[in-house]
Amino acid sequence: MGKSTNIVWHDSIIKRNDREILNGNRSACLWFTGLPSSGKSTIAREVEYILYIRRIRTYVLDGDNVRHGLNNNLGFSADDRKENIRRIGEVAKLFVDTGIVVCTAFISPYREDRDFVRGIMGKGDFIEVFIDCPVDVCEQRDPKGLYKKARAGEIKGFTGVDDPYEAPKNPEIVLNTAEVPEVHRNALQVVDYLEKNGYIQRPQATLIR
Amino acid sequence: MGKSTNIVWHDSIIKRNDREILNGNRSACLWFTGLPSSGKSTIAREVEYILYIRRIRTYVLDGDNVRHGLNNNLGFSADDRKENIRRIGEVAKLFVDTGIVVCTAFISPYREDRDFVRGIMGKGDFIEVFIDCPVDVCEQRDPKGLYKKARAGEIKGFTGVDDPYEAPKNPEIVLNTAEVPEVHRNALQVVDYLEKNGYIQRPQATLIR
Repeated sequence: MGKSTNIVWHDSIIKRNDREILNGNRSACLWFTGLPSSGKSTIAREVEYILYIRRIRTYVLDGDNVRHGLNNNLGFSADDRKENIRRIGEVAKLFVDTGIVVCTAFISPYREDRDFVRGIMGKGDFIEVFIDCPVDVCEQRDPKGLYKKARAGEIKGFTGVDDPYEAPKNPEIVLNTAEVPEVHRNALQVVDYLEKNGYIQRPQATLIR
Repeated sequence: MGKSTNIVWHDSIIKRNDREILNGNRSACLWFTGLPSSGKSTIAREVEYILYIRRIRTYVLDGDNVRHGLNNNLGFSADDRKENIRRIGEVAKLFVDTGIVVCTAFISPYREDRDFVRGIMGKGDFIEVFIDCPVDVCEQRDPKGLYKKARAGEIKGFTGVDDPYEAPKNPEIVLNTAEVPEVHRNALQVVDYLEKNGYIQRPQATLIR
Protein backbone atom coordinates (compact mmCIF):
# COMPACT_ATOMS: atom_id res chain seq x y z
CA MET A 1 0.00 0.00 0.00
CA GLY A 2 2.78 2.37 0.88
CA LYS A 3 4.07 2.20 -2.65
CA SER A 4 0.72 2.83 -4.28
CA THR A 5 1.02 6.54 -4.82
CA ASN A 6 0.75 8.92 -7.70
CA ILE A 7 1.88 11.86 -5.65
CA VAL A 8 4.85 13.25 -7.51
CA TRP A 9 6.43 16.66 -7.53
CA HIS A 10 5.28 18.75 -10.45
CA ASP A 11 5.38 22.32 -11.62
CA SER A 12 2.40 24.56 -11.18
CA ILE A 13 -0.11 24.05 -13.97
CA ILE A 14 -1.63 27.48 -13.48
CA LYS A 15 0.84 30.20 -14.38
CA ARG A 16 0.83 33.97 -14.09
CA ASN A 17 -0.40 34.29 -17.65
CA ASP A 18 -3.44 32.14 -16.87
CA ARG A 19 -4.28 34.37 -13.95
CA GLU A 20 -3.87 37.50 -16.08
CA ILE A 21 -6.27 36.04 -18.64
CA LEU A 22 -8.80 35.29 -15.89
CA ASN A 23 -8.45 38.83 -14.54
CA GLY A 24 -8.49 40.50 -17.95
CA ASN A 25 -5.40 42.62 -17.41
CA ARG A 26 -1.65 42.44 -17.44
CA SER A 27 -0.32 42.55 -13.88
CA ALA A 28 2.26 45.06 -12.67
CA CYS A 29 3.64 46.87 -9.66
CA LEU A 30 3.00 50.61 -9.44
CA TRP A 31 5.80 51.74 -7.14
CA PHE A 32 4.89 55.13 -5.68
CA THR A 33 7.88 57.01 -4.26
CA GLY A 34 8.24 60.51 -2.86
CA LEU A 35 8.67 62.67 0.23
CA PRO A 36 6.47 62.28 3.29
CA SER A 37 3.09 64.01 2.64
CA SER A 38 3.74 64.20 -1.10
CA GLY A 39 0.53 62.23 -1.76
CA LYS A 40 1.74 58.67 -2.47
CA SER A 41 -0.81 56.75 -0.43
CA THR A 42 -3.74 59.00 -1.30
CA ILE A 43 -3.12 58.76 -5.04
CA ALA A 44 -2.49 55.01 -4.80
CA ARG A 45 -5.88 54.59 -3.04
CA GLU A 46 -7.58 56.65 -5.75
CA VAL A 47 -5.96 54.48 -8.47
CA GLU A 48 -7.23 51.42 -6.57
CA TYR A 49 -10.72 52.90 -6.49
CA ILE A 50 -10.81 53.75 -10.21
CA LEU A 51 -9.50 50.30 -11.15
CA TYR A 52 -11.89 48.52 -8.79
CA ILE A 53 -14.89 50.24 -10.41
CA ARG A 54 -13.57 48.86 -13.69
CA ARG A 55 -13.36 45.34 -12.16
CA ILE A 56 -9.56 45.28 -12.27
CA ARG A 57 -8.03 43.47 -9.30
CA THR A 58 -5.71 45.69 -7.26
CA TYR A 59 -4.11 45.89 -3.85
CA VAL A 60 -2.28 48.67 -2.03
CA LEU A 61 0.70 47.86 0.15
CA ASP A 62 1.56 50.68 2.54
CA GLY A 63 2.72 51.37 6.05
CA ASP A 64 -0.65 50.41 7.49
CA ASN A 65 -0.58 46.80 6.35
CA VAL A 66 3.18 46.16 6.19
CA ARG A 67 4.87 47.90 9.13
CA HIS A 68 2.55 46.31 11.69
CA GLY A 69 2.78 42.85 10.17
CA LEU A 70 5.49 41.50 7.89
CA ASN A 71 8.03 44.19 8.81
CA ASN A 72 7.16 44.67 12.48
CA ASN A 73 10.60 43.38 13.47
CA LEU A 74 12.40 46.13 11.54
CA GLY A 75 13.47 49.51 12.88
CA PHE A 76 14.80 52.57 11.09
CA SER A 77 18.52 51.82 10.91
CA ALA A 78 20.15 51.89 7.46
CA ASP A 79 20.14 48.07 7.31
CA ASP A 80 16.55 47.82 8.45
CA ARG A 81 15.36 50.43 5.95
CA LYS A 82 17.05 48.47 3.20
CA GLU A 83 15.52 45.19 4.38
CA ASN A 84 12.13 46.92 4.68
CA ILE A 85 12.15 47.87 1.00
CA ARG A 86 13.60 44.50 -0.04
CA ARG A 87 10.78 42.57 1.63
CA ILE A 88 8.14 44.90 0.19
CA GLY A 89 9.70 44.40 -3.24
CA GLU A 90 9.65 40.61 -2.90
CA VAL A 91 6.03 40.64 -1.73
CA ALA A 92 5.08 43.01 -4.57
CA LYS A 93 6.72 40.52 -6.96
CA LEU A 94 4.50 37.74 -5.56
CA PHE A 95 1.45 39.96 -6.02
CA VAL A 96 2.44 40.62 -9.65
CA ASP A 97 2.64 36.84 -10.06
CA THR A 98 -0.97 36.53 -8.85
CA GLY A 99 -2.09 38.63 -11.82
CA ILE A 100 -3.17 41.79 -10.01
CA VAL A 101 -2.08 45.42 -10.21
CA VAL A 102 -0.28 46.04 -6.92
CA CYS A 103 0.45 49.57 -5.71
CA THR A 104 3.15 50.21 -3.12
CA ALA A 105 3.17 53.52 -1.27
CA PHE A 106 6.40 53.98 0.68
CA ILE A 107 8.82 56.90 0.80
CA SER A 108 11.55 54.50 -0.43
CA PRO A 109 14.07 57.37 -0.49
CA TYR A 110 17.14 55.55 -1.78
CA ARG A 111 17.68 55.00 -5.50
CA GLU A 112 19.71 51.85 -4.89
CA ASP A 113 16.87 50.17 -2.97
CA ARG A 114 14.27 51.03 -5.64
CA ASP A 115 16.61 49.85 -8.39
CA PHE A 116 17.05 46.56 -6.51
CA VAL A 117 13.30 46.02 -6.66
CA ARG A 118 13.23 46.94 -10.35
CA GLY A 119 15.99 44.39 -10.86
CA ILE A 120 14.15 41.44 -9.29
CA MET A 121 11.04 42.05 -11.38
CA GLY A 122 10.45 41.15 -15.02
CA LYS A 123 10.61 43.71 -17.82
CA GLY A 124 7.64 46.06 -17.63
CA ASP A 125 6.52 44.71 -14.26
CA PHE A 126 7.94 47.63 -12.27
CA ILE A 127 6.37 51.03 -12.92
CA GLU A 128 8.05 53.75 -10.88
CA VAL A 129 5.66 56.59 -10.03
CA PHE A 130 7.58 59.58 -8.75
CA ILE A 131 5.45 61.97 -6.71
CA ASP A 132 7.46 65.11 -7.38
CA CYS A 133 6.50 67.72 -4.81
CA PRO A 134 8.79 70.32 -3.21
CA VAL A 135 9.58 69.68 0.41
CA ASP A 136 8.14 73.03 1.53
CA VAL A 137 4.75 72.10 0.04
CA CYS A 138 4.85 68.69 1.71
CA GLU A 139 5.78 70.36 4.97
CA GLN A 140 2.83 72.76 4.75
CA ARG A 141 0.46 69.81 4.33
CA ASP A 142 1.96 67.65 7.10
CA PRO A 143 -1.35 65.91 7.99
CA LYS A 144 0.28 63.76 10.63
CA GLY A 145 2.46 66.54 12.11
CA LEU A 146 5.60 64.52 11.36
CA TYR A 147 7.61 67.36 9.75
CA LYS A 148 6.85 69.43 12.83
CA LYS A 149 8.18 66.70 15.10
CA ALA A 150 11.25 66.22 12.89
CA ARG A 151 12.01 69.97 12.95
CA ALA A 152 11.65 69.89 16.73
CA GLY A 153 14.16 67.03 16.84
CA GLU A 154 11.60 64.56 18.15
CA ILE A 155 12.07 62.32 15.09
CA LYS A 156 15.59 61.59 13.84
CA GLY A 157 16.50 60.63 10.28
CA PHE A 158 13.29 62.00 8.80
CA THR A 159 13.32 62.07 4.99
CA GLY A 160 13.28 65.66 3.73
CA VAL A 161 14.47 67.10 7.04
CA ASP A 162 17.63 65.31 8.15
CA ASP A 163 17.72 62.36 5.75
CA PRO A 164 18.04 62.64 1.96
CA TYR A 165 15.46 61.80 -0.69
CA GLU A 166 17.04 60.61 -3.93
CA ALA A 167 14.70 61.40 -6.82
CA PRO A 168 14.34 58.72 -9.54
CA LYS A 169 16.36 59.40 -12.71
CA ASN A 170 14.06 57.66 -15.18
CA PRO A 171 10.67 57.07 -13.56
CA GLU A 172 7.92 55.77 -15.81
CA ILE A 173 5.47 58.34 -14.42
CA VAL A 174 6.02 61.75 -12.75
CA LEU A 175 3.21 63.46 -10.87
CA ASN A 176 3.73 66.99 -9.59
CA THR A 177 1.20 67.28 -6.81
CA ALA A 178 2.14 70.89 -6.03
CA GLU A 179 1.16 72.01 -9.54
CA VAL A 180 -1.72 69.51 -9.85
CA PRO A 181 -3.09 68.99 -6.35
CA GLU A 182 -6.32 67.23 -7.38
CA VAL A 183 -6.04 63.57 -6.36
CA HIS A 184 -8.33 62.31 -9.10
CA ARG A 185 -6.39 64.01 -11.93
CA ASN A 186 -3.14 62.46 -10.71
CA ALA A 187 -4.72 59.03 -10.41
CA LEU A 188 -6.15 59.26 -13.92
CA GLN A 189 -2.67 59.98 -15.27
CA VAL A 190 -1.53 56.65 -13.79
CA VAL A 191 -4.57 54.84 -15.21
CA ASP A 192 -3.85 56.43 -18.62
CA TYR A 193 -0.32 55.06 -18.49
CA LEU A 194 -1.68 51.56 -17.85
CA GLU A 195 -4.08 51.90 -20.78
CA LYS A 196 -1.58 53.35 -23.22
CA ASN A 197 0.97 50.66 -22.42
CA GLY A 198 -1.47 47.79 -22.73
CA TYR A 199 -1.70 46.73 -19.08
CA ILE A 200 -5.45 47.34 -18.97
CA GLN A 201 -8.06 47.84 -21.63
CA ARG A 202 -9.62 51.21 -22.36
CA PRO A 203 -13.27 51.00 -21.30
CA GLN A 204 -15.75 50.82 -24.15
CA ALA A 205 -18.33 53.20 -22.75
CA THR A 206 -17.10 56.76 -22.31
CA LEU A 207 -19.45 57.08 -19.34
CA ILE A 208 -17.11 54.90 -17.28
CA ARG A 209 -14.46 57.60 -17.55
CA MET B 1 -0.30 77.80 -4.44
CA GLY B 2 1.50 75.63 -1.96
CA LYS B 3 -1.52 75.71 0.27
CA SER B 4 -4.00 74.78 -2.45
CA THR B 5 -4.18 71.09 -1.88
CA ASN B 6 -6.87 68.56 -1.23
CA ILE B 7 -4.38 65.80 -0.59
CA VAL B 8 -5.30 64.49 2.81
CA TRP B 9 -4.68 61.19 4.49
CA HIS B 10 -7.68 58.90 4.30
CA ASP B 11 -8.57 55.29 4.88
CA SER B 12 -8.83 52.89 2.00
CA ILE B 13 -12.21 53.16 0.31
CA ILE B 14 -11.96 49.67 -1.15
CA LYS B 15 -12.03 47.05 1.59
CA ARG B 16 -11.51 43.31 1.67
CA ASN B 17 -15.26 42.75 1.48
CA ASP B 18 -15.46 44.75 -1.76
CA ARG B 19 -12.74 42.61 -3.27
CA GLU B 20 -14.49 39.43 -2.14
CA ILE B 21 -17.69 40.64 -3.83
CA LEU B 22 -15.77 41.35 -7.05
CA ASN B 23 -14.18 37.90 -6.93
CA GLY B 24 -17.37 36.08 -5.96
CA ASN B 25 -15.90 34.18 -3.03
CA ARG B 26 -14.93 34.57 0.58
CA SER B 27 -11.14 34.69 0.89
CA ALA B 28 -9.13 32.39 3.14
CA CYS B 29 -5.78 30.79 3.73
CA LEU B 30 -5.52 27.03 3.21
CA TRP B 31 -2.49 26.17 5.33
CA PHE B 32 -1.13 22.79 4.20
CA THR B 33 1.15 21.15 6.76
CA GLY B 34 2.81 17.75 6.88
CA LEU B 35 6.01 15.75 6.54
CA PRO B 36 8.34 16.16 3.55
CA SER B 37 6.91 14.22 0.56
CA SER B 38 3.51 13.89 2.23
CA GLY B 39 1.88 15.63 -0.76
CA LYS B 40 1.31 19.23 0.43
CA SER B 41 2.46 21.08 -2.66
CA THR B 42 0.97 18.63 -5.13
CA ILE B 43 -2.46 18.75 -3.53
CA ALA B 44 -2.28 22.55 -3.15
CA ARG B 45 -1.53 22.83 -6.89
CA GLU B 46 -4.48 20.58 -7.69
CA VAL B 47 -6.77 22.70 -5.51
CA GLU B 48 -5.47 25.78 -7.36
CA TYR B 49 -6.25 24.09 -10.68
CA ILE B 50 -9.79 23.09 -9.71
CA LEU B 51 -10.56 26.55 -8.35
CA TYR B 52 -9.04 28.29 -11.39
CA ILE B 53 -11.30 26.34 -13.73
CA ARG B 54 -14.17 27.66 -11.62
CA ARG B 55 -12.85 31.23 -11.99
CA ILE B 56 -11.93 31.50 -8.32
CA ARG B 57 -8.76 33.52 -7.74
CA THR B 58 -6.06 31.54 -5.97
CA TYR B 59 -2.32 31.58 -5.35
CA VAL B 60 0.07 28.98 -3.96
CA LEU B 61 2.93 30.06 -1.72
CA ASP B 62 5.62 27.40 -1.43
CA GLY B 63 9.36 26.93 -1.24
CA ASP B 64 9.77 27.75 -4.93
CA ASN B 65 8.49 31.30 -4.70
CA VAL B 66 9.31 32.15 -1.07
CA ARG B 67 12.68 30.64 -0.16
CA HIS B 68 14.44 32.18 -3.18
CA GLY B 69 12.84 35.60 -2.69
CA LEU B 70 11.30 36.99 0.48
CA ASN B 71 13.02 34.50 2.78
CA ASN B 72 16.34 34.12 0.97
CA ASN B 73 18.14 35.67 3.95
CA LEU B 74 16.94 32.95 6.34
CA GLY B 75 18.68 29.68 7.12
CA PHE B 76 17.51 26.64 9.04
CA SER B 77 18.31 27.58 12.63
CA ALA B 78 15.45 27.45 15.13
CA ASP B 79 15.09 31.26 15.01
CA ASP B 80 15.19 31.35 11.22
CA ARG B 81 12.60 28.59 10.87
CA LYS B 82 10.30 30.51 13.17
CA GLU B 83 10.86 33.76 11.22
CA ASN B 84 10.31 31.84 7.98
CA ILE B 85 6.83 30.75 9.05
CA ARG B 86 6.05 34.15 10.59
CA ARG B 87 6.77 35.98 7.32
CA ILE B 88 4.81 33.44 5.28
CA GLY B 89 1.90 33.89 7.69
CA GLU B 90 2.01 37.67 7.38
CA VAL B 91 2.15 37.48 3.59
CA ALA B 92 -0.70 34.96 3.55
CA LYS B 93 -2.68 37.42 5.66
CA LEU B 94 -2.10 40.13 3.04
CA PHE B 95 -3.26 37.72 0.32
CA VAL B 96 -6.43 36.97 2.30
CA ASP B 97 -6.98 40.73 2.43
CA THR B 98 -6.85 40.88 -1.39
CA GLY B 99 -9.88 38.58 -1.56
CA ILE B 100 -8.23 35.45 -2.94
CA VAL B 101 -7.92 31.89 -1.67
CA VAL B 102 -4.23 31.51 -0.83
CA CYS B 103 -2.67 28.08 -0.30
CA THR B 104 0.57 27.71 1.62
CA ALA B 105 2.56 24.49 1.26
CA PHE B 106 5.32 24.30 3.86
CA ILE B 107 6.26 21.55 6.29
CA SER B 108 5.68 24.04 9.14
CA PRO B 109 6.46 21.31 11.69
CA TYR B 110 5.96 23.25 14.93
CA ARG B 111 2.50 23.66 16.43
CA GLU B 112 3.45 26.95 18.07
CA ASP B 113 4.43 28.55 14.75
CA ARG B 114 1.23 27.43 13.02
CA ASP B 115 -0.86 28.61 15.97
CA PHE B 116 0.88 31.98 15.74
CA VAL B 117 -0.33 32.32 12.15
CA ARG B 118 -3.83 31.23 13.14
CA GLY B 119 -3.71 33.91 15.82
CA ILE B 120 -2.87 36.81 13.49
CA MET B 121 -5.70 35.94 11.09
CA GLY B 122 -9.40 36.64 11.48
CA LYS B 123 -11.91 33.99 12.51
CA GLY B 124 -12.36 31.47 9.71
CA ASP B 125 -9.53 32.91 7.64
CA PHE B 126 -7.07 30.16 8.59
CA ILE B 127 -7.92 26.66 7.42
CA GLU B 128 -5.35 24.13 8.59
CA VAL B 129 -5.02 21.20 6.18
CA PHE B 130 -3.09 18.39 7.81
CA ILE B 131 -1.56 15.97 5.32
CA ASP B 132 -1.49 12.93 7.55
CA CYS B 133 0.88 10.38 6.05
CA PRO B 134 3.19 7.98 7.93
CA VAL B 135 6.85 8.83 7.68
CA ASP B 136 7.72 5.44 6.11
CA VAL B 137 5.32 6.11 3.23
CA CYS B 138 6.76 9.60 2.73
CA GLU B 139 10.24 8.13 2.79
CA GLN B 140 9.38 5.55 0.13
CA ARG B 141 8.16 8.34 -2.17
CA ASP B 142 11.10 10.69 -1.56
CA PRO B 143 10.97 12.27 -5.07
CA LYS B 144 13.82 14.64 -4.31
CA GLY B 145 15.97 12.09 -2.50
CA LEU B 146 15.99 14.22 0.63
CA TYR B 147 15.17 11.45 3.12
CA LYS B 148 18.07 9.46 1.66
CA LYS B 149 20.43 12.38 2.18
CA ALA B 150 19.11 12.94 5.71
CA ARG B 151 19.59 9.25 6.59
CA ALA B 152 23.13 9.49 5.23
CA GLY B 153 23.76 12.47 7.50
CA GLU B 154 24.17 14.87 4.56
CA ILE B 155 21.20 16.97 5.73
CA LYS B 156 20.92 17.84 9.42
CA GLY B 157 17.69 18.69 11.23
CA PHE B 158 15.47 17.07 8.60
CA THR B 159 11.83 16.83 9.68
CA GLY B 160 10.81 13.20 10.14
CA VAL B 161 14.39 11.97 10.46
CA ASP B 162 16.22 13.99 13.11
CA ASP B 163 13.76 16.81 13.71
CA PRO B 164 10.21 16.39 15.06
CA TYR B 165 6.91 16.98 13.28
CA GLU B 166 4.16 18.12 15.63
CA ALA B 167 0.79 17.06 14.20
CA PRO B 168 -2.07 19.57 14.48
CA LYS B 169 -4.51 18.90 17.32
CA ASN B 170 -7.62 20.39 15.70
CA PRO B 171 -7.02 20.85 11.99
CA GLU B 172 -10.01 21.89 9.89
CA ILE B 173 -9.17 19.25 7.27
CA VAL B 174 -7.24 15.97 7.50
CA LEU B 175 -6.08 14.18 4.36
CA ASN B 176 -4.51 10.75 4.67
CA THR B 177 -2.51 10.42 1.47
CA ALA B 178 -1.29 6.90 2.33
CA GLU B 179 -4.88 5.60 2.41
CA VAL B 180 -6.09 7.90 -0.39
CA PRO B 181 -3.13 8.49 -2.68
CA GLU B 182 -5.10 10.03 -5.58
CA VAL B 183 -4.25 13.72 -5.75
CA HIS B 184 -7.59 14.74 -7.25
CA ARG B 185 -9.66 13.02 -4.54
CA ASN B 186 -7.70 14.81 -1.83
CA ALA B 187 -8.04 18.15 -3.58
CA LEU B 188 -11.80 17.68 -3.98
CA GLN B 189 -12.08 17.12 -0.23
CA VAL B 190 -10.56 20.56 0.29
CA VAL B 191 -12.86 22.13 -2.31
CA ASP B 192 -15.85 20.43 -0.63
CA TYR B 193 -14.84 22.01 2.67
CA LEU B 194 -14.80 25.45 1.04
CA GLU B 195 -18.25 24.85 -0.45
CA LYS B 196 -19.83 23.43 2.69
CA ASN B 197 -18.53 26.30 4.80
CA GLY B 198 -19.66 29.02 2.42
CA TYR B 199 -16.28 30.21 1.14
CA ILE B 200 -17.14 29.40 -2.46
CA GLN B 201 -20.38 28.61 -4.23
CA ARG B 202 -21.29 25.14 -5.37
CA PRO B 203 -21.26 25.15 -9.18
CA GLN B 204 -24.69 25.05 -10.84
CA ALA B 205 -23.87 22.57 -13.60
CA THR B 206 -22.92 19.10 -12.38
CA LEU B 207 -20.66 18.78 -15.42
CA ILE B 208 -18.21 21.22 -13.85
CA ARG B 209 -17.56 18.70 -11.09
